[in-house]
This record gives sequence, C-alpha cells and structure tokens, in this order.
Amino acid sequence: MVLDNVNSPKDLKGFSLQQLETLAEEIRSVLIHKMSISGGHFGPNLGVVEASIALHYVFNSPIDKIIFDVSHQSYVHKILTGRKDAYMNDDEKWGVTGFTSPKESEHDFFSIGHTSTSISLACGLARARDLKGNKENIIAFIGDGSISGGLAFEGLNVGGEMNTNLIVVVNDNNMAIADPHGATTLHLAKLRETKGQARDNYFRSLGFDYYYVEEGNNIVPLIKAFSKVKDTSRPVVIHICTQKGRGYAFAEKYPEGWHYHAPFDIETGQNKGANTGENYGFTVRDFLLKKMEKDPSICVITPAVPMSCGFNAEIRQKLGKQFIDVGIAEEHAVTMAAGIAKNGGKPIVVSLSTFYQRAYDQILHDLCINKCAATLLVRNGSIWGDTDETHLGFFDIAMMSNIPNLVYLAPTNCEEYLAMLDWSIEQNDYPVAIRIPCNKLVHTDKPVEKDYSNVNKSVVTIEGEKVALFALGDFYQMGEKFTQAIKDEFGFLPTLVNPRYMTGVDKYLLERLKENHQLVITLEDGIVEGGYGQKITSYYGASEMKVLNYGLKKEFTDGAKAPQLLQRNGITYENISNDMKQLLFLKPVWVGDSVS
Amino acid sequence: MVLDNVNSPKDLKGFSLQQLETLAEEIRSVLIHKMSISGGHFGPNLGVVEASIALHYVFNSPIDKIIFDVSHQSYVHKILTGRKDAYMNDDEKWGVTGFTSPKESEHDFFSIGHTSTSISLACGLARARDLKGNKENIIAFIGDGSISGGLAFEGLNVGGEMNTNLIVVVNDNNMAIADPHGATTLHLAKLRETKGQARDNYFRSLGFDYYYVEEGNNIVPLIKAFSKVKDTSRPVVIHICTQKGRGYAFAEKYPEGWHYHAPFDIETGQNKGANTGENYGFTVRDFLLKKMEKDPSICVITPAVPMSCGFNAEIRQKLGKQFIDVGIAEEHAVTMAAGIAKNGGKPIVVSLSTFYQRAYDQILHDLCINKCAATLLVRNGSIWGDTDETHLGFFDIAMMSNIPNLVYLAPTNCEEYLAMLDWSIEQNDYPVAIRIPCNKLVHTDKPVEKDYSNVNKSVVTIEGEKVALFALGDFYQMGEKFTQAIKDEFGFLPTLVNPRYMTGVDKYLLERLKENHQLVITLEDGIVEGGYGQKITSYYGASEMKVLNYGLKKEFTDGAKAPQLLQRNGITYENISNDMKQLLFLKPVWVGDSVS
Repeated sequence: MVLDNVNSPKDLKGFSLQQLETLAEEIRSVLIHKMSISGGHFGPNLGVVEASIALHYVFNSPIDKIIFDVSHQSYVHKILTGRKDAYMNDDEKWGVTGFTSPKESEHDFFSIGHTSTSISLACGLARARDLKGNKENIIAFIGDGSISGGLAFEGLNVGGEMNTNLIVVVNDNNMAIADPHGATTLHLAKLRETKGQARDNYFRSLGFDYYYVEEGNNIVPLIKAFSKVKDTSRPVVIHICTQKGRGYAFAEKYPEGWHYHAPFDIETGQNKGANTGENYGFTVRDFLLKKMEKDPSICVITPAVPMSCGFNAEIRQKLGKQFIDVGIAEEHAVTMAAGIAKNGGKPIVVSLSTFYQRAYDQILHDLCINKCAATLLVRNGSIWGDTDETHLGFFDIAMMSNIPNLVYLAPTNCEEYLAMLDWSIEQNDYPVAIRIPCNKLVHTDKPVEKDYSNVNKSVVTIEGEKVALFALGDFYQMGEKFTQAIKDEFGFLPTLVNPRYMTGVDKYLLERLKENHQLVITLEDGIVEGGYGQKITSYYGASEMKVLNYGLKKEFTDGAKAPQLLQRNGITYENISNDMKQLLFLKPVWVGDSVS
Repeated sequence: MVLDNVNSPKDLKGFSLQQLETLAEEIRSVLIHKMSISGGHFGPNLGVVEASIALHYVFNSPIDKIIFDVSHQSYVHKILTGRKDAYMNDDEKWGVTGFTSPKESEHDFFSIGHTSTSISLACGLARARDLKGNKENIIAFIGDGSISGGLAFEGLNVGGEMNTNLIVVVNDNNMAIADPHGATTLHLAKLRETKGQARDNYFRSLGFDYYYVEEGNNIVPLIKAFSKVKDTSRPVVIHICTQKGRGYAFAEKYPEGWHYHAPFDIETGQNKGANTGENYGFTVRDFLLKKMEKDPSICVITPAVPMSCGFNAEIRQKLGKQFIDVGIAEEHAVTMAAGIAKNGGKPIVVSLSTFYQRAYDQILHDLCINKCAATLLVRNGSIWGDTDETHLGFFDIAMMSNIPNLVYLAPTNCEEYLAMLDWSIEQNDYPVAIRIPCNKLVHTDKPVEKDYSNVNKSVVTIEGEKVALFALGDFYQMGEKFTQAIKDEFGFLPTLVNPRYMTGVDKYLLERLKENHQLVITLEDGIVEGGYGQKITSYYGASEMKVLNYGLKKEFTDGAKAPQLLQRNGITYENISNDMKQLLFLKPVWVGDSVS
C-alpha cells in the first residue's frame, strides 16, 4: 500500500500524482472499513479525502497551520499526520478521538468540537505570527454547514480587514448535518451554478480574494489552487465543491443519514446494532406532531439538528412554516423564538446542552429579560450524553439555573416530561427550558402534575425521616434505588424528593424537613459548582441541617462514560451511604442486631 | 411648536413636508437641550431624527412593528410615541429608560440593550405573523456598528431565505461606538462611494433586495424609500446614510466622544461634571502601554469598547498590530485571543461583564478546554456599574466561576489588580479573567502577591476568631468596615479574608477556620445563586460551620443604584450583624458591660 509509506505529511512531498490518487483510494477504503466497525462522522470525512491530501502536499504542517472547523472532517488529516494505525485495525474502540487534539499530535492546534470557530482561531494564529514577524501560512478549513454560525461571520469580518496571509478553504458539500439552510446556502448554490462567477459574492463583500474549485474531489485542481495562494499576503477564500459521503453509494444517496453513522454492514449499509426501542426522540416527535396539527401557532426551531426531535425530511416538508431549521445558529434560534413568542406564536427550540452554551446571552437578554414564553428542549445534558471533552452536557444546570425569570425543569420520566412540555407550550408567563432525561426512557403509572405554574414547588414522592434525598431529573431513579437501599441497610425510610425545578428551591418544603430530618442529600446529573444542590446548601447554610451535594467535579473529562463518571465522583450508594453513616453515626441494621 | 400636536405616530399622518421638517428641527433642539442636562446616547439619536419621523410617517406602529437594535437610537421614536414629556423638561432624571421598553409603550416590543439582536427578533415576529395569516410590516432598524455582531449575520442569513415581508433599515453613520471596524465597514464605504452600485453586495449575497438612500438626514428620500418597500413580500435592506451627532457641531466633529455623553454646556461642549480623578481605566492604560512597549507579543483586543482601557484614537494608531478592535463581536474577540495565545502571543481582551455573556461558549470551548493563556479584563461587573436591566453586571461570577480551567480573579485594590494582570500576562498555564473593581480606585501600601499560580489560595488579612468574613473583590473594603464594626459592637475581632480567586475555594484555609470559628460570612458583588459564596457553603455543608451568603437576589433590576441594591438585598452592617447576633447568641459589648 502507498499508505504504508506515509508517517508524516513530509512523506507526501515526493509522491507522483498517481501515488497521491492511489493514496486517496486507500484512505477511503480504510475509512469505510473502520467506520463500518466503529461508527463515526462518515460523510464529512469521505468527502475531504482529496482536499486533505492536497493540503498536506502543498503546505508544510505543522509550520503552516491548518485548523479544521468542528473537526468532523479531520480523520484523513489524522491518518496523514502519524495516526494511521488508529484507523487500520478492526478494534471497535478508536485509538484517537474524533476531533483534532493537541494531546495527540503537533499537527493539531486546538481541541475543537463546536462549529464555526476556525476562522477566528486562524485570525488569532495569524496575528500572533505577524507580531513575531514569522511567515507561515494559516489555513482554516470550514464546511458550508458551519458558515451559518455567527462566529464564522465575525471571523470573516475581522479577517477580511487584516490584510495578511489568511487562507479559508470553504468545503461546500451542499449539506449541513441535515439539509443546509440559510441564505448562504442559496448563495453557494448560485456560485456553483455560475462556476464562481455570480455577482454579489459574499466572501468578496467581506474583503477576501476568492477562488472557485469545481472539482473538489480531484487532487489536481486542488493542488493547483492551494499552490496559487500559498504564501499569499492577503485574506483569501478557496471555495471547493466536494461530495459528502463520496465513494460509498449509500452515503452518496442519503447524506443526512450518513453524516454520522453507527457501525454498519458494508454490503447492505444496514446498522449492525439492534434497534434500541422506545426513546424520547420519537415519543416527543409524536406528541409534538399531534399538538402542531391542532395548533398552527406552534413553531419548532432547530439549529441544524432536526433529528433531535425525530423530524425527518418528510415531516419537515409537511410542517411547512411550523418548522424552521435555522442552520447552525443557536443564538439566532433562541432570539427568533423570543420574536415568535412576542407576536403570539408558540416557539419550541430543540438543541443539545453543549450547543445552548452558544446562546447564553440570547437566553438571558432576549428571552428572559423580556419574559418571552418560549420552550427550550435541552438534549444530552447528562453523563449519559456525549463523552467528548468538547460535547459534555455537564454545564447547562450551572449555566441556566442562575438566569433570572427562566424556569428550568427536570422531568424524571416520560409522562412527566410530556406534561411539562404541554404546560410550557400552553402558558404565556415564563421562558421555560426542559432537560430531557438521558437515562433510558422510563414510564410511570402514577399520575403526574399537569400544571407547573406553581414555580419551584418540589414533590415528596416518599415521605420518610432523618435523611431526605433530592434526586434531580434523570438521577431520580438512582434516588429511588438509594432510598430502598438505605431502608434495607439502616432500617429507616428516608424521604425522596423530585425537585422538578432547577431554577429555585421549595422553601416551604425545606423548612418542613427541619422537623424530622438531619441530612439532605442532593443528586444531580451535572457539575456541583453553580448547580441546583448548592441552592439548597446555601438555604440551609445557617441552620442545623447538614447537606451533602453530589454531582460532577468541575472539569473537562474526555471519553469517560457514565459508570466511570459516577465512580470517579463518588456518586455510588457505597460512597454516599458511607458519608451518611459517618455523619449521622448510623449503624447498619445487622450490626445493631448482633450487638443487642 | 409642531411637536405639541404629536402624541402618537397617527398625528404625523396629515403633516405636510414643511411640518415634518420643522418637527425634525424641534426634536433635535429638544434632544440637545435634554441631553445637556441629563446626558445620554447623544450621537446615535441626533443622527436618526429624520429616519424616525419618516418611519412613523410611512408605517403604522404598533400594528407595523419597528425594532430598534440596541435601542441607542430610540429617543426620537419615544418622543413620537407618546413619551415626549420625558424629554421636554429640565429634570436631571429621565422619565423614561434609555432603551425601548414594553413596560413604557405598546410601540416598544422588547427591552433591548445588547446589539445585533434586532434582525433575529424581527424574523421571529415575521414568522409568527405568517403563522397567524396577518399582514403587518416588520422592520428592524440597525446601525452599521451592530452589523458586525454574529447574531446580526445569523438573522440576515435566516431572514434572507424566509421569502416574506422583512424590512431591515441599515443606519450607516460610518461609526460604531468608536471608529468602525471589520470588513463590512469597508464594504459599506464602497457602497457609499458607488451610491449603492458596488459589485459584491453583502446584503444581496444574503438574499435581500437592496435599496440605497444617500441622504439619510433628508425626510423626502426616506419617505420615498420606505413607501416603496411598505407591504413588500420580500426581505429587503434599505441602506441609509446618516450623520452621527447631526446638528451639533462638537458631536459632528468628534463622534466617538459624543456617542454617549455626560451632561454638558451647550455653548462650549464641555462636561458639566468635575473631573472624577484617578480611575482604573487610565491606570491600567498606562500600565499596559509600558508593558506593550517592552513586549511586542502583547496584543490587546476589544470588541468596540477601546476606551474601556483608555485607548483613544491616537494610542490605537500608535499600537499598530498590538491592538485590534474587532467591532462588536465578543465571540470573535475571545476565540481570536485563543488563537493568539496558541501561537505564542499574549492576548488581553477588554470588555464589560454584560457583554462577556455573549462569549460564554467561546470562553468555555475555545479558551478553557484548550487552556489558552489569554487574559480577559471584565469591566462593570458590579452594583456600581450599569443599572439598566439589559446591562447589569451581576451575572459574570455565576457564569464564569463555574467554567473548568478558568482562573477568575477578584482584586481588591489597584496594586493587587496590576499585580494580577502582570502575572496573568506573563504566565502560560491558565486562561485568566480579572474582575476590575468598580468601587472607586483604592490604593494599598501593604505589599501584594506577585505570583498567583498557587490557584485558589485565599489570604487572611485580619486573623481573628468566631466569625470569618470572605469579602470578595470590590466588596473587600466593606468587609474591612464590617470587621471593625463587629469588634466595636461585640468586643471580638473577626477574621477577614481576601478570597482572590472566584473559581475555587481554599480548602486548607476552610479546614483551619473550623478550629476557632463558628460562622463564615461571604460577601460578593453579584448574584448569590451559582456564585462564589455557595462554593464555600457547599464545602461546609456537612460540617458544624454555619455559613451566610450575602450578595444579590437573582433578578433583573432596572435602574436601581448601588445603595438601593445593598439595602434591598440586606447587604448592610445592620442586617448582617443582626443575623450573626441571632445565630451566635451574641450580645453587644455595652449590654454585656451593663449586666456584669
């Protein structure tokens, strides 16, 4: 294999065109094979095989610095920069992360998992280079889907004025995660139609020189274009047209389903894993579709993740104006929701915990100061969500529960979630966020509250004594188990509370607990600092009540899965019951028995 | 006066051109007179007198909905919509807020104080209108300075695809708060030069129809342009050229100084207030300039607020590449800083507490996951900062102190601030934020620590007993006063701690305090929930130590000044000593004396 001889980008330099093309085919096969076993960002990586080879052929990484936006298309780069072994094996586990990582290689400059940051990072690298009087090339490689993020525009707006070497490769595969949205998409289409000649060029309007490469999956024109701009002293955009999923028929045909793909059978394209059964995505989809049919003022907004609520292409089409995919633009999604609510619509934003981080100010300034009754559905805010350091869902409670006027709800099961969602859609008084449980879908046969307007009212689900467990959201089932275990081990029944609201405490309940409780234990699926539990601790700060807060340490973990995280943070019955035992001088029932 | 007959926009409808022009002159006089007494956003409002009149002449507010971006130019709108009395008096106080406010008028739809939100809000209003089958016009009025914010782009990107009535008036006065920056600025200049004919039109590239109005301070062409697009079924941009500070010679000549202006003498343009003496802005400016001269790798970045560190036009010019104003683009400022740090530069970002809210994810994802050693200077994070509900500096501790890897410092005086800044610039291990004190500049003659790499190490400044006060940042002087008052009243000396770090607690110290203290009191200039004090409370949750957290309630206050806020939140010696007394069964010394 040609690939056998590639251990660093330097090894490409002497290759013939024939060898480079063979290398591309080999890498494509390696990727398809590996991802059929391990899953991964399938479409983006197959599309950029030639562009990655051409970049490393022309430029001199790591002196020249290439920043891959969001890193979903960095696998080929990793293969070419000394990490091919991680892709050339049949292990289910990856030996590298799915994102660029300075810990792995000197060819990676940032750990990146959110989109639209590459141009601004490149502006910074370029400015530092200029301050030091160096001359290397700085290259940002960004997809058409990521161009819709406001930060990418800010980067272009500043970069276009910098009058220095700054090369932006726009990888246009005419897809975001799902179908592309926003006017830039239509604009890129126009540029493709006119082979880059269309009037009103977006990139030129922002001060960039502009080159168009029609055959972005052909190494020759790519090398030509990159060579032309190498060592330029100007900000320049190279618009390359590539095909997402290139070289694998199923992915070429259905790019949305193959943006990311779980392990699959290469022959049939079918998932290897079993159907995982009922889940919150599809349950909520059905619920929403029913409501939306009855009430045309309900409008679902998503920043490029429509499948977060199970809205496939057919459903999206059918919903018409009641659905809007704003592209990767979380800020706009939230602020537009404020506008919809103010003019009498019922907006529901669907996104992930980690991505709402990009809309902190929009939640605070646009939604909450104005008390616009929008609903934000928060997915993957959990140790059971994503595990990459750039996608952790551990911070949203600390981020959102301290914003005035917001009602942030933590449902503990399916029925409660749907009831909260229903209430939120119908009410007009509060901006509401709902943290979708992330442990597997749980049903209850007990009646659930329909009206959540009595804000901060928690529910005692087991009335006990001595110890009260406040088990938040998808940690509630853990609370149930611990309650029973405490009864079994120590012979008394503790109180179990479903807090329901993360944005405030139930003072009445907290006062009442003082009567026959000595200890409150809080359990939350997020960092302890700034979170829900500390609100309770602060309330009890001057009282005799002891409080123990359990949750995650404030840190960026990378790849750690839920069981590890629970263990590492002492969120286990063994640890918690031990803390409790010491604090309350408890003795296990059997010890008591043997002594008496 | 013509103005006497204007109590609602309806009253304009029958006016002749002559009357409208007279009205413009009258309003301009009213504004100059009122702002000479009360101060205000001078330049932006004088520039849009004619445009505001023309908008209300052509459109039918509040059925047609006009959204003023950032609201700095909404005074004329307020005068025309029933609030003229607030401007036609000699009171120093305003009878209205400086921002649009739905509490004041049905013609205001949102409370807005941050830039770049108007187009997204308008998209939302338009979508709700379309869902309901209504037909009103939706107008966003946005300045060239606000166009640089990523959210404004996201709004255009989505709006340009919406294919519905959405009118964006771009008010181009060729100024941001200071001189304008970013490629869009150069682009607007090109459009002005070519009377709107330049190739590569930014707005057209994003799917908007485009109209150019050269004389934006002339009512006739404005009315013509607005009438042309009224009831359009397309997204359209009307680019109007206006003059910031129009009609007042000093403001026309020096628009940066007259963006906002304190009360002044109309004849001379001089400030009425006295020079307020030494302040952190100028002290830090001198410090930075000295350091930057010695070290060319230091680069100061500001999102459109260069005067936050005292950098006037002359200094900016002199600093060359060591300074960059990125326009109103906080996200980019932080992410670019990450890039500069990664390539060996020493970036310092200067902005305000309320504006860092727009960069939460950039601080977390770009700066902190990557541990880039950038310095963020945080201004106005305080009850002594801005008082408008949209500009409160109460949330940054809760927002930033819970982000992993960040070191958030709270200096208590000038010397400590400069030492922290110096350390931060020179170190390579941490992203650092520093909260600039907001009580008046305080000096110390005691030596201050030079090395802050022993993260989370607090300092005991008064070694006492029974009660320990943790007085954070600019509440430290309050802590000093309370310490002395406690000694005077109760006869024992409490311990006083300067926490220094807001991102973690000093566990060693907290353990040691258990030996001879029963109560810890935390004082912080921000909301209690999610803040620094709750970290201490959580640490002590299971111990015998009592903790009382003092700070602000989680709420949006509007216009409340520091003394009111302290009173309302019980941050007074009277209240705190009373809580302490009850908790520790203390008796004042004189009572003790009289009993013995």
